[in-house]
This record gives sequence, C-alpha cells and structure tokens, in this order.
Amino acid sequence: MTRSSKLRLGLFVQETGHHIAGWRHPHAHADAALDFDRYVDLAREAERGLFDLLFIQDSSAMRGANDLDALHRTARAVTWEPLTTLAALSQVTSRIGLIGTATTTYNEPYQVARQFASLDRISRGRSGWNLVTSNNEAEAANFSRETHLAHADRYARAEEFVDVVKGLWDSWADDSFVLDKAGGRYFDPGGLQFLAHRGEHFQVRGPLTVARPPQGHPLLVQAGSSPTGRAFGAAHADIIFTAQSSLADARAFVADLRERAFAAGRVHAPLVMPGIMPVVGRTDEEAREKFAQLQNLVDIDLALATLATTLGEFDLRAYPLDGPLPELPPANGPQSRRALLVDMAKRENLTIRELALRVTGARGHLVVVGTAVEIADVMEHWFDEHAADGFNVMPTHFPDGLRDFVDEVVPELQRRGRYGTQYAEGTLRERLGLSRPHRQARAQGERDE
Amino acid sequence: MTRSSKLRLGLFVQETGHHIAGWRHPHAHADAALDFDRYVDLAREAERGLFDLLFIQDSSAMRGANDLDALHRTARAVTWEPLTTLAALSQVTSRIGLIGTATTTYNEPYQVARQFASLDRISRGRSGWNLVTSNNEAEAANFSRETHLAHADRYARAEEFVDVVKGLWDSWADDSFVLDKAGGRYFDPGGLQFLAHRGEHFQVRGPLTVARPPQGHPLLVQAGSSPTGRAFGAAHADIIFTAQSSLADARAFVADLRERAFAAGRVHAPLVMPGIMPVVGRTDEEAREKFAQLQNLVDIDLALATLATTLGEFDLRAYPLDGPLPELPPANGPQSRRALLVDMAKRENLTIRELALRVTGARGHLVVVGTAVEIADVMEHWFDEHAADGFNVMPTHFPDGLRDFVDEVVPELQRRGRYGTQYAEGTLRERLGLSRPHRQARAQGERDE
Repeated sequence: MTRSSKLRLGLFVQETGHHIAGWRHPHAHADAALDFDRYVDLAREAERGLFDLLFIQDSSAMRGANDLDALHRTARAVTWEPLTTLAALSQVTSRIGLIGTATTTYNEPYQVARQFASLDRISRGRSGWNLVTSNNEAEAANFSRETHLAHADRYARAEEFVDVVKGLWDSWADDSFVLDKAGGRYFDPGGLQFLAHRGEHFQVRGPLTVARPPQGHPLLVQAGSSPTGRAFGAAHADIIFTAQSSLADARAFVADLRERAFAAGRVHAPLVMPGIMPVVGRTDEEAREKFAQLQNLVDIDLALATLATTLGEFDLRAYPLDGPLPELPPANGPQSRRALLVDMAKRENLTIRELALRVTGARGHLVVVGTAVEIADVMEHWFDEHAADGFNVMPTHFPDGLRDFVDEVVPELQRRGRYGTQYAEGTLRERLGLSRPHRQARAQGERDE
Repeated sequence: MTRSSKLRLGLFVQETGHHIAGWRHPHAHADAALDFDRYVDLAREAERGLFDLLFIQDSSAMRGANDLDALHRTARAVTWEPLTTLAALSQVTSRIGLIGTATTTYNEPYQVARQFASLDRISRGRSGWNLVTSNNEAEAANFSRETHLAHADRYARAEEFVDVVKGLWDSWADDSFVLDKAGGRYFDPGGLQFLAHRGEHFQVRGPLTVARPPQGHPLLVQAGSSPTGRAFGAAHADIIFTAQSSLADARAFVADLRERAFAAGRVHAPLVMPGIMPVVGRTDEEAREKFAQLQNLVDIDLALATLATTLGEFDLRAYPLDGPLPELPPANGPQSRRALLVDMAKRENLTIRELALRVTGARGHLVVVGTAVEIADVMEHWFDEHAADGFNVMPTHFPDGLRDFVDEVVPELQRRGRYGTQYAEGTLRERLGLSRPHRQARAQGERDE
C-alpha cells in the first residue's frame, strides 16, 4: 500500500471534553454523560467534519474512586458504555467509523467477538475494537478477582484472547448463507467451521452465532506504548493510538513500530494516530486567551490528584508544589504514560505544579494552541515527517472545541489537499486502505463429536 | 394497583419468524438475520401496532450445532446480539419497550448492570432485562468451562447475580449530578454509594460508572417455569414470559405465581404474558389454508430433530414415527418445556410425528388459527379468566405474520376497548403501571478504604 497523501482524523470522545475543566466552560454541555442527545449531536458534527472514525475509551471501574473529594470536581465519574453507545450511533450516522474499547483482562472472548461482529453488521462495516489490557486495579474488584493480573500476564492473556476472537469471526465463510427457500437449505454446512480452541487461558468451541462481519474482522486498534504493548500492536493492530508530545519522539515511535511490524511478518505497518488537543482561534492571541480561560478554571488540588492517578496512584501532596518531581517507586499501572510524564518533567525541568497543569490539559498528548493555519502546519509537518498518519482529535470541551475544528481546521487541511472533501464509498477498512482479512482455516475435529 | 382493562402486547422476535418453515414462505424475509434493515422494519411495524415491548431471546452458543444436517435446514444458526441490537433500535423507534436476554450463568454482573443501565438511559427508560439461567450445555464450551452448572446451582448463582445488578443500579441517587460549573462540583458525593458485595459467587465493589437508569431499574423479565424458576420469577420479575397451551394450565400458572409473589412479600404480582402464534385470515378457511401452507413446508426429519432438542437432546429416531413418545431419562436441560410437551403428548395421545409437527409450529406455545375476531376472542377470554395479562406475539414469519396481526387483530382489540389507541407518555414502567424501584442503601464500608 502506498501511503495516502491524506491524513486521517479520529474524534477521541470524552463526553464533556478532554480538558479537565472543560465541562466548566460557560458554553460546555456539562450533561453530556447524562443526555444521549449530546452524543448524537457530537457524532453528527464529527461526520460533518468527514472524520474517519470516532473512538470511545473505556474502563470497567471508576477511576479515582478512592478520592471522591477530587473526583466529584471532575466530569469523569460516569460515561456511556461503549458497545450500546456505538450501536445506537450507527443508526444516526452513516459513514463514520465506530471504535470502542473492550478489555481482554476481564471479558470473555466469545462475548467480545459476538458483540463486535454484531456491531459490524449493524453498522454495515464501520466497527473497530480498541483492544486493551486493563491497567486499572479497581477493575479487579468489580470482577470477583482478589488481585489484578501483572503486566506480562495481561499481555499473554491478550494474545490468546485476540487469537480466539479472530478465529470466531472466521466461523462462517462470507458466502455461507444460500437462503434456498425451495430446497430448504438456509446455509451451506461446508462454510461453517468450529474453533475448538484449547489454550492456556481459554477453551472455546465456537462457532459464532453471527454471520461473518462485513469487514471480515472489525478494525483492531491498540494503544499500549510500553515495549510489550508496542510488540503487541505491531503484530495485530490496524491502527495505533498514542500520546506523543514531541515530533522527535513520535518519529522514533513510528519507526520502531514499523520495524516491529515488518519483523513480525506484516506487509503493512499499522496507521499511527497520536492524540492532539487543538485550541483554535481566529488569531493567535484569541487562541491563547481561549486556552488561558480553561487553564484558569483548573483547581490545582484536582490537577495534583489527576497527576497522582496518571503516575500510578502516587500521592504527591507531601512534596513541595514548586519543587521537582521525586523519584517514583515501581507501579503495576500504565507504564508508558507514566514514563512520558517523568521524561517530560526532567527534560523541561518542570515543577510538580507545572507538570500537573500540563496533565490536566491533555494528559501528555500534543496540545496546539493557535490559528487554523498554525494547527494545520503542525499536523502537516508531523504527517510529512512520518511522525503520524493522522490524528485523534481531543476537543477541550463540547460543542465549541469540535465545532471550531470542523469549521476552521478541516477546510484549511482540505485547501492543502491533505484531507478529503467527501466520504469515499465502502467499509471503514476500504476507506482507510486497509486490507480485508482472509478467513483462516481452523481445527475441524469438533465437527464429528 | 387495580388490574388494567387493557391487555399488553409484546413482539417476540425471531428474525425469520417462529414457525420452523416460516423462512421458506414465498413472502418471508429469509435474510433477516443478515440485513439489519429487516429488524428496523419489524420494530417500526410493532410500534405502528402500539406494542408495549419487543423481546429478543438469546443463547451464547449455537443450538443444534451437533446436528448440522438438521440445523442447516433451519434459519436458527445465526441471530443478532441483543444489547447491540436493542441499542440500535432505540434510535429508530421512540416508544416501544426493548427487552433483551442475558444469561446469569456465563456473564459478569458488572458488565450486565452497565450495559442495561446504559441502554435504559440511551432509550430514555425503555429497557428490560430477560434474566435467564443457561440451559444450553454448549454455552459452557464457549466460556472455558469443562461442565455446565447443575440446575439448582444455576439459580443460586442467578439469585446472587440479580442482587448485585440491582445494587449496582442503585450506585447513584437520582439527583446526584448537580453540574455546578461555577462551584466546580459535578456531582454530590453524598449521592454515591459503593456496593462492597462479598458473596459466594461474586465479589463486586462498584460503584457503577453509569448514572441511575431513568426507570430506576430496567424491567426484570423472567421465563423459567420450573418450580425453582417460578419461585425466582415470583420474587424478582416485573413480567413473566411463559409457554401455555391450555386455558386451565395458564390459569393455574398465574394463580400459582400470584401466590408465590405475595408469599415473597410483594404487593403486586408480575404481569404474565404467554406466547401466542396467531395465524390470521379474513375467513376461517383462509387462516387454515395459511397454516397448512406453512405446515406443508416442514421437513419431518427436521421436525424430529427440533423435538429431540426440546426434549434435552434425546434422539427419537430409533422409535416408530407413528407410535407413542417413549419414557425419557432425566436431563440437565430446560425442565418446564420438556414437561409441557410430555404432558401434551400423553393428554392428547399424540404420536411422535404429531408431537413433532406441534413443536415446529410454536414449540409448545398457544397457536390460534382463525379470523381476527376469533383470535381476539381467545385473547380476551384468557385475559378475563386471569390466564394472561397480555401476550407475547410470535409471528410465523415476517413481514406478513406481524402485518396481518397489526392490520386485523389490533383494531379488533381496540374496538373492544381491550387495547390502547395511542402510546401513553413516560417510561416503559410508567406505561405498564409498574412502580419505580426505590433506591436501597448498601454497605458503605469501602468508602473509607
């Protein structure tokens, strides 16, 4: 596949916006996690902006529940469940890709395979699965587990999980359903295969009770940036979401991922889409004022609590606010985001206060404050320098943050020939230039049971 | 609650119709499990008929997969997954209740609580959970279990499961979300409670990351008719689905259920909705011809295989087709449906062939073949005799079977004052006259962890 000259755009949805104080903005829809019409509106707005996809992150437990005093001052405690949300959105949109997160740590592969296969058929080939290993220890406590799985065990389970899910999606041949009324043959039994998987973590007989997804397999998306996470994404993912705050790091990340993908025997490397929080003004000054308005709404105690969570529930309140970040003990949480923040603090000599305010902005993602021209410049530069194949756009708040981007930045990218002017036909895979997975033959021994 | 003078109607969806040969009818939409537009159309048609609800049954494994030769001649191998389907339908309908099945045997309560809470909010208070214990041994093989749980163990797990789910739905007070932008308070921490459940089967800390459902709790629906199943439904369910083929049995069932409900301390007994397969003609003769056309499309080998499955995978092919049903060994499958068929065969002196043709018709449910007046007569009589509070309508095939009912039987019921002429306002609970569950206080110990 030759690299497209167009960059890809995803809308990374956080109902009330990605900026921690976004919900407090006078224009913000603070009720977006309570009133589903808000979600419908933002999906339609993203489709107006010709976004390739929208993406819902997820956790199966409340993050920050151990510090309700901090949590209740954020809009992070409740969300919409991804599968039901994406299925509902499939009926009020027609083109945009619908990417949802499901963990391999606490789900069962049969259920995940089935719900995404159903979503892919319901949406006519627009679904994608953001496959995560849970990094939230609170999830264990909601799923009858005494302790959280260690990092390496989570990825071993994830490897087997994705293999089972792919196998289940291949239960049926694409042309299995002959629907022969006169002959009384609904499907051709030759087009059906059992999985008969017997592995270390799972035993799954199959077959799936949903016909093969229109895309063959829903898109696989991955966002782990630790070495294990990168190896996993390079081997399996169609798209990689990542947090990158410098061009050099992003280029190195893309190069490393390509190398790993080719070493794993893949013909095409995954598309890499870093997050970007754009703050768009008609002038540079207006943009800076907009960002300052949001930063001024940030409660510093809350910013510190958010930083502590991102660092693996490490409590910083015992350290001087205007002093440096102390050395951190090892943690069983998200490895790569923590390392990114520690590096950023060292590189830029940030105090705890400064780092906390950075985190509340975009949690380590790229923030660009400026005019549409300036924002498009950065996006184009990253694209041309092979630091990104596109971006996951993270509006500060809704609806303004998305509307400004669609009204201002999208036309600027179109003028430069860097972005489409209408949706192409076909499934999400087809529109992104990703190949449709061939159906793999599996064990057939169970057939004779 | 005084008993309503109106009977309730549900649409029991089987994509290609409930009659085993329904998909082979010349008018039938045989592709209804493959093309989601068919589902959208039938949901809208049910809403045109002012149905109170539509209901999706489910299994997490392919039924009959051990006999592909029989299975491939039915339209039963693939279906739509309930949660994604109902969420999608919520956006193309506005009033009809959306009831989906989820098993307590292989799911995790946190996931079930979350998906139904999200569906209830997305649909603005129209969701219901048909809570089942799995009776399909093939499901164990898709969920990494060596053996299926025994009948009694399944209900013990279900009891604890539903308690956890209700507790999670009560995580938030209805007025928790103050959304105070100026004060920086998104929710009131006093309105949030942890579950901290530690039981025999589950340990679930909570809280749920979805706000309280508009209905308080989505409707609870139950369909187990064994003594354990009845006790469970009487204690927990808002609606009971059941298969009843005689007025006397149905009356006894309703009376037994009421007694059990009041003994369990409930003020109102659940609404009982038996299945009914209507075959509507403008004349009695036309109706009989319509039914004969379907029965003539039935393959007797297939009918025998279906009967064998319903009897708990008992192979009847060694016995004379025109002889009586032999004595059956005990089975770990669906208890009540099996007993119903065995009783029916004894009572009516049916041969194996005759019983098999009955089962292919409606699997033990009531079949009424006649004019709209005759069908309305039966429904009204059952209602007046306290044998039903309404019916779960099971069209033989789509779209004809449903359209005929909506065009002919619904107006007849309306003429008699037995059915509404427009949807009432409010949530599904409000429209059905079911009370909204109060929020129960739970353990708060975890708050201080």
